[in-house]
Amino acid sequence: MSQMFTLESLNSLPLPAFSAAIGDVFEHASWVADAAFGHRPFATVAALHEAMMGVVRASPPERQLAFIRAHPELGSKVKRLDLTADSQAEQGSLGLDRLSDAEFKTFTALNEAYAEKFGIPFIICVRRHTRDSILKEFRRRLDNDADTERKAALDEIALITRLRLVARVDGPGKPKTEGRLSTHVLDNVSGKPAKGVRISLYEIGASARSLLAEALTNSDGRTDQPLIAGGPLRIGSYELQFAVADYFAANGTAQSDPAFLDVVPIRFSIAEPEGHYHVPLLVTPWSYSTYRGS
Amino acid sequence: MSQMFTLESLNSLPLPAFSAAIGDVFEHASWVADAAFGHRPFATVAALHEAMMGVVRASPPERQLAFIRAHPELGSKVKRLDLTADSQAEQGSLGLDRLSDAEFKTFTALNEAYAEKFGIPFIICVRRHTRDSILKEFRRRLDNDADTERKAALDEIALITRLRLVARVDGPGKPKTEGRLSTHVLDNVSGKPAKGVRISLYEIGASARSLLAEALTNSDGRTDQPLIAGGPLRIGSYELQFAVADYFAANGTAQSDPAFLDVVPIRFSIAEPEGHYHVPLLVTPWSYSTYRGS
Amino acid sequence: MSQMFTLESLNSLPLPAFSAAIGDVFEHASWVADAAFGHRPFATVAALHEAMMGVVRASPPERQLAFIRAHPELGSKVKRLDLTADSQAEQGSLGLDRLSDAEFKTFTALNEAYAEKFGIPFIICVRRHTRDSILKEFRRRLDNDADTERKAALDEIALITRLRLVARVDGPGKPKTEGRLSTHVLDNVSGKPAKGVRISLYEIGASARSLLAEALTNSDGRTDQPLIAGGPLRIGSYELQFAVADYFAANGTAQSDPAFLDVVPIRFSIAEPEGHYHVPLLVTPWSYSTYRGS
Amino acid sequence: MSQMFTLESLNSLPLPAFSAAIGDVFEHASWVADAAFGHRPFATVAALHEAMMGVVRASPPERQLAFIRAHPELGSKVKRLDLTADSQAEQGSLGLDRLSDAEFKTFTALNEAYAEKFGIPFIICVRRHTRDSILKEFRRRLDNDADTERKAALDEIALITRLRLVARVDGPGKPKTEGRLSTHVLDNVSGKPAKGVRISLYEIGASARSLLAEALTNSDGRTDQPLIAGGPLRIGSYELQFAVADYFAANGTAQSDPAFLDVVPIRFSIAEPEGHYHVPLLVTPWSYSTYRGS
Repeated sequence: MSQMFTLESLNSLPLPAFSAAIGDVFEHASWVADAAFGHRPFATVAALHEAMMGVVRASPPERQLAFIRAHPELGSKVKRLDLTADSQAEQGSLGLDRLSDAEFKTFTALNEAYAEKFGIPFIICVRRHTRDSILKEFRRRLDNDADTERKAALDEIALITRLRLVARVDGPGKPKTEGRLSTHVLDNVSGKPAKGVRISLYEIGASARSLLAEALTNSDGRTDQPLIAGGPLRIGSYELQFAVADYFAANGTAQSDPAFLDVVPIRFSIAEPEGHYHVPLLVTPWSYSTYRGS
Repeated sequence: MSQMFTLESLNSLPLPAFSAAIGDVFEHASWVADAAFGHRPFATVAALHEAMMGVVRASPPERQLAFIRAHPELGSKVKRLDLTADSQAEQGSLGLDRLSDAEFKTFTALNEAYAEKFGIPFIICVRRHTRDSILKEFRRRLDNDADTERKAALDEIALITRLRLVARVDGPGKPKTEGRLSTHVLDNVSGKPAKGVRISLYEIGASARSLLAEALTNSDGRTDQPLIAGGPLRIGSYELQFAVADYFAANGTAQSDPAFLDVVPIRFSIAEPEGHYHVPLLVTPWSYSTYRGS
Repeated sequence: MSQMFTLESLNSLPLPAFSAAIGDVFEHASWVADAAFGHRPFATVAALHEAMMGVVRASPPERQLAFIRAHPELGSKVKRLDLTADSQAEQGSLGLDRLSDAEFKTFTALNEAYAEKFGIPFIICVRRHTRDSILKEFRRRLDNDADTERKAALDEIALITRLRLVARVDGPGKPKTEGRLSTHVLDNVSGKPAKGVRISLYEIGASARSLLAEALTNSDGRTDQPLIAGGPLRIGSYELQFAVADYFAANGTAQSDPAFLDVVPIRFSIAEPEGHYHVPLLVTPWSYSTYRGS
Repeated sequence: MSQMFTLESLNSLPLPAFSAAIGDVFEHASWVADAAFGHRPFATVAALHEAMMGVVRASPPERQLAFIRAHPELGSKVKRLDLTADSQAEQGSLGLDRLSDAEFKTFTALNEAYAEKFGIPFIICVRRHTRDSILKEFRRRLDNDADTERKAALDEIALITRLRLVARVDGPGKPKTEGRLSTHVLDNVSGKPAKGVRISLYEIGASARSLLAEALTNSDGRTDQPLIAGGPLRIGSYELQFAVADYFAANGTAQSDPAFLDVVPIRFSIAEPEGHYHVPLLVTPWSYSTYRGS
């Protein structure tokens, strides 16, 4: 974990210390911090990030290209040694450093096709994606032209560095980088929040599902912690499972045998990594409804 | 397929023809039909069935026991040759004649334990059950005492023979032996029935799921045929899947990318084989509800 | 009530009898039937009506104008003697022959303004409207130009005569002139249709509400008869009231005191007189939902 | 408005000052405060209140009776001069000091019947009731026996004085005396909170309805302030009205003309004055649902 700075202290550091502090936010490109230094003081963390991206976007095309090319390939096993610590943590969080052979082949083939067509590595802010949505994006973006992808690479770098910066710099005006997934269970037989409902959250991949969280609803029918929080949500498919038959049995509410509703699955997709997804369940032993709430 | 008789014609047949017509409804026990003959004429098919069950229930204990014992073991491979055509069809419909080795062992062990404890074969109206609910019933009933199981065997025989009889005899007052599963999709954005929604129905077993039906909703938001009909519903777990993202995309209704709701799963259990289960979906791209309707 | 004819018999009548049979469907204009006679035989009732409207639309402008002008003023008390029996029944059904003095003044003023601007009486198919929607249409149409209103008058005459014709002629291909309002109550605590729920239907006018129907739900949670049927629905506002607290109390379902939900009102508007409005209630003592169903 | 004290300061006051501070919390009975003084120090405001009620409940029957009798009649016009300031404010909040002649007669008759039967005035914590629920309680309690009503009077006095005490004494462990009514509108077409929905809240009396609050939903689909807060909710019937057609029209969502749903009324009763009633609306132009939420 890198050291944390306040925006205030950053604003008062001399150039070498400033660049030492946040220079590696941009992959192998401390010149970005060097040039942004001239724009001090920064009123907000967002303004600091915009200044740094402004340096990148205003740099000559060859420099931009070299900068983009200095980013690692996605899911590469061979280039593992070149990864910065941040890149490694980001890609590792998705299991991209633990790909099966078949998946590794798919990623390798896509990486090669992309590099051959565009001459740059495929860049994407992995922390905003599931493996499936990365593959989908990979395939979609392969159909673009070079200009579009040059821009897409910079946009994704902006998303990547924004996340790195807010992890490094504390201060006012942080850009919104965190999403949240929450739920709420209402028992429409008793008119009260449903307490003690076992909830499981799965990520549903094309090939597998993985358990992300388990929780028990509290006396307000909510989970003590959001189901996902503290960073961007990953674009992808999810399933919430609510063990409602056990809940109603524990409360003595009449059900059929077997219960009409046992474990209620709610399958949904997340499209906005920085959004709030509230996915409640209103339930009786014979009915339920759900919706994207707020 | 056996020959079909009308209740009217049965009422007018002489004894030998009467027993030839419906004697085999009771497994290896044409004496039941012989004795029921004296109760003619029957006003309803249900009355005929009750008369036959009355003969069984009024017969001496030893005869009842011999009658019960003449029923085949469930899922037996070895005694295949002894099965009546009806028993074979009933058990085959559930795949009990195609058990895996592990399942065969489970059934064999349960059969042996049951036979040893009660001295009679485990009898259950398989057409009203999935494999999972048969196993559940098997385990539950193993805890009963002998008297309870003697009664349970006769009750199940009543259910089995009722089904056989309505398949053999046409006439007024048929007992209700058919359940029905239907659905209905309402598009709450347009206020209209959702036409063209792809629906899949699965049976969800403990170890596997199997596709039972596929359908497309018509202009009334319903399927042209019930999802299940024409016989008892099987007690067990099911999942309906509704391809709502495709539907809304085809209708130009705005959705997120990826769609918040893609394929909506509704998982439910059936407890009443002769009941009507109407399981509708009221849906927008951001919400849905379901309930046991009528 | 006029005599009923079959389309088949109409097709075979000589001209005088043909016109005697349906000549008065068009107000004071038996020449329409005379001219339509030449288009026999008619395959459907709709084709007969289209032929008659075709005669009107193809007639010279002065004749059309005279024909339109022969229609009575709406809500007129003074010209009561001139009304055909059909007009009287249609306007009477809405209480337009029992207007209060204030309402009479409003109608008189609108009639005069309309007549002065367009030189024709305001024509509207009253059986498709409530008093409020007639007033709304009156005001809306006063802003039109003369051509638009000439066309509107003919369109309304088509609607009026279509209703008269289907009341006079039986046969294949009747145009759809009947709407239907129905409901359905599901008890989501028991998972069953709610039986014995008292339902009241009100028309909600700007100045008053009037009770249109009362019913008790049957064992399928529906009313034995549709709440409105047998003719066009009237465009306007309605309120259904469901006495759910009484229902749940009668069924021993726990409620608060006083009950959170007592009489549930559902207020909605009808816009399609020939449509089917199914307005169900899914209810527990603590929640409900409704939707336009099918 | 009386002076506010902290529990801490009350705990350290000498007897005369202590009784001067809170003596009038109990109607014409500063002896209650005098006797409670001996139980200092009080850890919580609730403990102080319990100590005072303990004094009342432990006092000799004749003293209790005299104490009860010193309370004013409900809705009395004649005895207006005797009312303490608190009683006047409490009864005035409900309009009990502005009764019509007919209502005054009803209250007078009930007061007389009650006084004659029980020899004490009818005491009820009016701030927890609407006029209708007071009448209902009046009639219900008239059927009780004297002992039950003596206890009921003390229970209501506990509720009345609890409210007075929390208005006078600040400190830890305040008893819960405040309820809350809130709402929330979700637009299920867009999957977002509905912003800008006009909401009206009415109290629905047996004879009249009165507007209690009007609000516009904010960007979270909620009202900036709870619809009712800051004190007990009044037991009674309410109606929320949501102007959904205007909302959908402003957002360009397709509706019929007239809109199927215009102003959606949700009628409900409050039974728990200290509870939280969250009554949300999930809505499309063709459907809605509501429930008691949390």
